[in-house]
Amino acid sequence: MPGQESFHMTPDEFRRAGRLVVDWIADYYERLESLPVLSRARPGEIRSALPPDPPYQGEPFEAMLRDVENIVLPGLTHWQSPNFFAFFPANSSGPAVLGELLSAGLGVQGMLWATSPACTELETHMLDWLVQMLELPAKFGSSGSGGGVIQDSASSAVLCALLAARERATGFMSNECGCDGRLVAYASDQAHSSIEKAIKIAGLGRQNLRLVAVDSSFAMRPESLADQVKHDLASGLVPCFVCATVGTTSSNAIDPLAAIGPICQKHRLWLHVDGAMSGTAALCPEYRFIHHGLEYADSYAFNPHKWMFTNFDCDCFWVADRAALIQTLSILPEYLRNQATESGSVIDYRDWQVQLGRRFRALKLWFVIRHYGVNGLQHHIRHHIALAQRFADWVRAEPNFELAVEPPLNLVCFRHQAGDSANQRLLDRLNNSGEMYLTHTRMDDKLTLRFCVGQTHTEARHVERAWQRIQWVALELA
Amino acid sequence: MPGQESFHMTPDEFRRAGRLVVDWIADYYERLESLPVLSRARPGEIRSALPPDPPYQGEPFEAMLRDVENIVLPGLTHWQSPNFFAFFPANSSGPAVLGELLSAGLGVQGMLWATSPACTELETHMLDWLVQMLELPAKFGSSGSGGGVIQDSASSAVLCALLAARERATGFMSNECGCDGRLVAYASDQAHSSIEKAIKIAGLGRQNLRLVAVDSSFAMRPESLADQVKHDLASGLVPCFVCATVGTTSSNAIDPLAAIGPICQKHRLWLHVDGAMSGTAALCPEYRFIHHGLEYADSYAFNPHKWMFTNFDCDCFWVADRAALIQTLSILPEYLRNQATESGSVIDYRDWQVQLGRRFRALKLWFVIRHYGVNGLQHHIRHHIALAQRFADWVRAEPNFELAVEPPLNLVCFRHQAGDSANQRLLDRLNNSGEMYLTHTRMDDKLTLRFCVGQTHTEARHVERAWQRIQWVALELA
Repeated sequence: MPGQESFHMTPDEFRRAGRLVVDWIADYYERLESLPVLSRARPGEIRSALPPDPPYQGEPFEAMLRDVENIVLPGLTHWQSPNFFAFFPANSSGPAVLGELLSAGLGVQGMLWATSPACTELETHMLDWLVQMLELPAKFGSSGSGGGVIQDSASSAVLCALLAARERATGFMSNECGCDGRLVAYASDQAHSSIEKAIKIAGLGRQNLRLVAVDSSFAMRPESLADQVKHDLASGLVPCFVCATVGTTSSNAIDPLAAIGPICQKHRLWLHVDGAMSGTAALCPEYRFIHHGLEYADSYAFNPHKWMFTNFDCDCFWVADRAALIQTLSILPEYLRNQATESGSVIDYRDWQVQLGRRFRALKLWFVIRHYGVNGLQHHIRHHIALAQRFADWVRAEPNFELAVEPPLNLVCFRHQAGDSANQRLLDRLNNSGEMYLTHTRMDDKLTLRFCVGQTHTEARHVERAWQRIQWVALELA
Repeated sequence: MPGQESFHMTPDEFRRAGRLVVDWIADYYERLESLPVLSRARPGEIRSALPPDPPYQGEPFEAMLRDVENIVLPGLTHWQSPNFFAFFPANSSGPAVLGELLSAGLGVQGMLWATSPACTELETHMLDWLVQMLELPAKFGSSGSGGGVIQDSASSAVLCALLAARERATGFMSNECGCDGRLVAYASDQAHSSIEKAIKIAGLGRQNLRLVAVDSSFAMRPESLADQVKHDLASGLVPCFVCATVGTTSSNAIDPLAAIGPICQKHRLWLHVDGAMSGTAALCPEYRFIHHGLEYADSYAFNPHKWMFTNFDCDCFWVADRAALIQTLSILPEYLRNQATESGSVIDYRDWQVQLGRRFRALKLWFVIRHYGVNGLQHHIRHHIALAQRFADWVRAEPNFELAVEPPLNLVCFRHQAGDSANQRLLDRLNNSGEMYLTHTRMDDKLTLRFCVGQTHTEARHVERAWQRIQWVALELA
């Protein structure tokens, strides 16, 4: 028997080290604006600063924090910087971070209701609150045949939706090979890469994903979808799944659900709606137009971890028919059997996701909603959209620049009129300056810059300064 | 333009609220032993204590913490209790929790190297450290053709391994339907339910999973595997994947890799080894026998979030041929293109997993390894195994009880000799007492209790008291 010596942190050591970390994070937020947004590290630079071998003896906590400061920090791209305008935001907030801390401290598993009832019930409750907050169709609420669950990401949500669609189309014959090469799925040619990934994972085959043409706003053309479905049916194929996007990654295009929905209904296609970033806008009644037609959807997802101040990971995923999802993903080995499950009166979220284990992610969502209130969340969403629209006004007013498309919400796609290489140099110069971080896309086969306003602490002055710098650098490069 | 009013937490408010949470967690650890391990909540009880509608106005942080205490806490099953002996542990520790806090505070995304170089490089470095610490085959290190990545769970790891196997068997024809109903996979009939789930997700069809017979130690019989593969080949099927388990969930059986490996090699089957809990034992040289034959494996996974003091989620997954994995999961849309990726000199972990987004999970692993040192980790693993073995000695010495199998490590499967209903009553009485939490399995068609020692703060006195209670309750029920 080894001796009773312990290497664990005592509760008092945890208090002391915990304060150090809390203070370090608060200090980080205070100086974040002064740090270069995009990391300047070269490949291999961080690893070369780390010892090649793991330590045999333990080290004091201060040593770790010192290395976070000296080694890790210079290797970070600061997603929480108010000057982060790249990709989509992955914003966060104090209450979310502390909800995550509490979740880690409790360390409970929510795979079954019985393994921590509060973990499951708070999650169901938050997803029902969000049905109210976004005014989603009532069928997604847990009191009917549907319900919601927290997934890690929109990628996992679309995968689960596709799997349920595949099983529904093949009669839930999970004993058989789930795919015979005839199942077909549809998304616009602007849809997120995760859909292509899901098609591959689910074994449908990449060639069975149809990328439907878009209109001048880069939104899916419903008539093209209808034509393609008819063509596939005539070819003896089995259309089963459509992913419509509410706010595409490239340009924030809003697929017209009200026109897509009836096509899906007619042909019994599972309609999944991906509102990963933009769904958050529906917190405000004036932006709920993005969800017009959502009553046709079989499933819907949006990510509080993008634009709703809730740190990654937290994707909210709803289905109209939870039985279809559960039938697709349920496995019940002996060691997971328990009275609560067998009573049928509880939700076991392991049957709603790919993984078995799951942590207590509803806590951070609960903290965020209660800290801000619906009122506070609406305020900040409106503020971000107003800032992006003001930026778009400046672009419109500047003859050397153009908007690639009218921005519906908080993402502005624009470019200098001097062509691709000029825009690439502009982008590189801005990002290398450390003053901001933008990313790009291609629209109408032209390199296009994306300016997305959604970071928690982005204020008018950050957007103003960014536009000044963009103009200035464009002049320098001219 | 909305006003400049802000609902965000200021850095100073974060400091204050952060200390409250840190202290709450420290207090929780101090009183954890006195709380009933298995929650006594009834279905719906937690939800009924929550307001039906989300708050319109924000609330003070103290209100949330008060509700955590009054509403959430009674609804938790305490996985961090030293009296938690159920399932497998999902243990944690101070340094891990603070690493998670820091990761949440930084809020960076590690989907591409460029989106935070330190997030990727620290992860690769930790996975290389673990190759040394567990003495894994060198081919899993990043300096050759392989490498490691952090997945959320062993379920996702086995899914990624299966997908790579599927693609390798079909010539990476991702354009085609990935499965034609002829691909076959193998695992022992004791393997984890996640394998069956992965088979369904990947579209192979449940009927194409062969559950190979086990020997008296509940480990896979290699000759049965060989026979089944030959039979399937003769039937015109395409065997492609074997999952061997090092420490099954039911009884901790160790599949014989050294005998399974050559069969896989001969038939070019992808061999994945699942060491979800027990892999941690290989921190100690005297337990590395569990990995004997691992040099045959194409992939390997173990979970620091089970038994290595690192809070969920943290599964470490290695492949011998990273190109196969990347070719299976890579998607490169325009908006993710960047110079570092195109240089080929960096790792983009989005191509190593199902999801796109990923958080900075290597931080907590780094903190755990540095806090404990290899020495401290070995000490606690040895201690847990010694406690479990002492418990097994007591069972052996008690005529009314029997071991269901010789326990190789830290999981003891045992039962009262009075039969299933007596064991069920014993289990229910123990769990309802709140003094401990055990789960069950079936072995040799008999209800069997599982006693797993792996919780961070489990000491000799907890195991002693548990055995005393088990004997006492058995006497009461007799």
